[in-house]
Amino acid sequence: MRVYDLILKKRNGGELSEGEIEYLIRGFTEGIIPDYQMAAFAMAVWFRGMTPKETAALTMAMANSGEVLDLSAIPGVKVDKHSTGGVGDKTTLVLAPLVAAAGVPVAKMSGRGLGHTGGTVDKLEAIPGFNTALSREEFLQQVREIGVAITSQTGNLAPADKKLYALRDVTATVDSIPLIASSVMSKKIAAGADAILLDVKAGSGAFMKTVDEAIRLAQTMVEIGTRVGRRTMALVTAMDQPLGRAVGNALEVAEAVETLQGSGPADLEDLCLTLGAYMLYLAGEVEAPEEGRIVLTKILHNGEALRKFQELVARQGGDGRLVEEPEKVLPQARQVFRVEAEGRGFIQKIKADEIGFAAMCLGAGREKKEDAIDPAVGVVLRKKVGDSVKTGETLAELYVNDVSRLEEAMERVKKAFVLGPVRPLPGKMVHAVVSAEGVKRVKSYITY
Amino acid sequence: MRVYDLILKKRNGGELSEGEIEYLIRGFTEGIIPDYQMAAFAMAVWFRGMTPKETAALTMAMANSGEVLDLSAIPGVKVDKHSTGGVGDKTTLVLAPLVAAAGVPVAKMSGRGLGHTGGTVDKLEAIPGFNTALSREEFLQQVREIGVAITSQTGNLAPADKKLYALRDVTATVDSIPLIASSVMSKKIAAGADAILLDVKAGSGAFMKTVDEAIRLAQTMVEIGTRVGRRTMALVTAMDQPLGRAVGNALEVAEAVETLQGSGPADLEDLCLTLGAYMLYLAGEVEAPEEGRIVLTKILHNGEALRKFQELVARQGGDGRLVEEPEKVLPQARQVFRVEAEGRGFIQKIKADEIGFAAMCLGAGREKKEDAIDPAVGVVLRKKVGDSVKTGETLAELYVNDVSRLEEAMERVKKAFVLGPVRPLPGKMVHAVVSAEGVKRVKSYITY
Repeated sequence: MRVYDLILKKRNGGELSEGEIEYLIRGFTEGIIPDYQMAAFAMAVWFRGMTPKETAALTMAMANSGEVLDLSAIPGVKVDKHSTGGVGDKTTLVLAPLVAAAGVPVAKMSGRGLGHTGGTVDKLEAIPGFNTALSREEFLQQVREIGVAITSQTGNLAPADKKLYALRDVTATVDSIPLIASSVMSKKIAAGADAILLDVKAGSGAFMKTVDEAIRLAQTMVEIGTRVGRRTMALVTAMDQPLGRAVGNALEVAEAVETLQGSGPADLEDLCLTLGAYMLYLAGEVEAPEEGRIVLTKILHNGEALRKFQELVARQGGDGRLVEEPEKVLPQARQVFRVEAEGRGFIQKIKADEIGFAAMCLGAGREKKEDAIDPAVGVVLRKKVGDSVKTGETLAELYVNDVSRLEEAMERVKKAFVLGPVRPLPGKMVHAVVSAEGVKRVKSYITY
Repeated sequence: MRVYDLILKKRNGGELSEGEIEYLIRGFTEGIIPDYQMAAFAMAVWFRGMTPKETAALTMAMANSGEVLDLSAIPGVKVDKHSTGGVGDKTTLVLAPLVAAAGVPVAKMSGRGLGHTGGTVDKLEAIPGFNTALSREEFLQQVREIGVAITSQTGNLAPADKKLYALRDVTATVDSIPLIASSVMSKKIAAGADAILLDVKAGSGAFMKTVDEAIRLAQTMVEIGTRVGRRTMALVTAMDQPLGRAVGNALEVAEAVETLQGSGPADLEDLCLTLGAYMLYLAGEVEAPEEGRIVLTKILHNGEALRKFQELVARQGGDGRLVEEPEKVLPQARQVFRVEAEGRGFIQKIKADEIGFAAMCLGAGREKKEDAIDPAVGVVLRKKVGDSVKTGETLAELYVNDVSRLEEAMERVKKAFVLGPVRPLPGKMVHAVVSAEGVKRVKSYITY
């Protein structure tokens, strides 16, 4: 087998066999196949795409390129959730204790992040003392004992994916649906998931700008999961404005606590209950997602989910008072600046990418891998889409330590808010549900 | 400027500016832009192509990446010829002295070869003593004094092209018309040509399998030349059977001598006269190619071209007796094997690629860069397309030193000859003439 022939085959629109894809990924991981050949291959894939069979083979080859976690010591169906990423997305912080409190084990490996804010691991590290570097034994032991653990991904999980992603990142081959799908799925499979729920974001603040694109990505991932024997479903959800109000690591932890107390922003609670309901359904805990939602709504509002969160934080070394006095435990920014409305009307939309960029300007996220994150800073929205606003009212607050890029952040936030004279119709949180059976588009909340 | 953005622009079908292409080629040549980014770019070009403006910019950026020969010390218009390569193509050996004898200076830089036989330089080195490594001064001096010199290309001529070609060769991005065209033209321009004649081969033995493809490549090269101020024309010529009879380095030198003596194979003489006529035309030596052909026919048959060849060989250190007693001067193979016809009929075609492969099996060409060439060995066709043949008659002779792959070579030669019951119509040598004014397709020799 020669790499040259595999590049040629893909370039000319052919289908690679499972063995050919394994050969390619093994050689690349071991450093035998040079980056330049893999870069040419990735670009050929960008143009030609991959068949479902190829995509599944690529996923498994990358999943098997390093350690594959064995979660069999934990009883029950292990459901993992993955979000394609959006601004203000702190759902994992809420979902993990919520679902665990309902009796489904949550053995969660999370990542750090590049972009507007950190990843789940960065957010948890905003809690003083919280240890995100559990050993394999500690991790499994904790899930067995309290039903939930969150730890950081180790370098040896799907190393082929890591290497390929780094190459795609500098060769303009990131935005290829089969490559995105296999990247996500390989990590979930290496992390030991029996079943997988995907939250594919669509909208201005997401990688997929349209619902149709997001559905295509969701279908590709569900097809992979189904082919490799993991029960997989995907929700295509709205990312037209930031999720919840807080964008910034400690600020998001505080908002997650509020939500677990039953007093969080409506959109965030709604999404967490929906995602959690599907996780319960995939775990076989309930007969239908609707039933799962009823179970979880109860758990969220009777304090069980909050207590599970407290248990999780304490077990991983975090300050247990977080739940009672979050402002005393979490790092606080030195200054708060208000962004005021310069006109009146109704908020039509809040450009999530602008809010995310503003948070990054303040130090909440990384532009480069080496950048440090300031856990205290970020943006909190005081108005959301559909709210009315008068001139001079507060649209958002900026939590700031370093003022060097404050002006830029302010401008971005101002630009993000789009006002109009008429109250917009409520948008949808879930656009579509994708399963092995097909795509179910969700109808608008309001029908005429 | 970021390389990433240039890859992205090309991938998405955009047009790169001259400055962007210069940046890319400079960075790549200097090793600042890594191979993997260039490989992704080349694959994007394979899919998207390049505009004439981009192709011309790429050509000049590669031409200017190293030394650019200054031939201004030689009076007159310096015309260079380039062939895209075919089996048995020894035209340069005939053309250089022929055109020089007509008063047009020939300062020729030639290459070695990979494939069925060596390149022009390898062929000349079959002549004992022939020095193909002239210094710049020796080279220019010789052209000024005797009107002709042939030397090998130095590493510093268009190094960007050399580096890019090596990368394309292992990333399945060789067969891209803008990349082929800019590669050829960059070397000709770096070699100091004022005007360029291209011999683009079409047929089973050539890179371009169809006349239409060959015309497209020819048009692209002519457009480049015209844009960068070099008078450029291209002939699309037949490569449906090997050119002449000999395939192998010393065997081809002997055939070139025969041709210069006026007794060479008809197709080879015809092509040399045609190409030479266009070179005289491009040099401004004659008003029309037809006139050039009359001049050259005379020079070929009155011995002037042969004497110029003898002068060239002697001046570059070769044995002058070559012209009188080629078999005493040139290395001879130890054994000759006949390939016999196994049926009767008329030769319909001779697959040039099979003959070329047979010659390579015998050691006439290189499979890998490091391989040594045996100058003595090769294949001589005793029948050409249109000839009648009886069972047991000799189709070809194999000149052999190393018999280890003899059987394979024999099989290839047998497979190459296609017999049929009816004599085929004579084919065309020139399919089309491409100039800045457009494409002139040549009509068939026989019309109904």
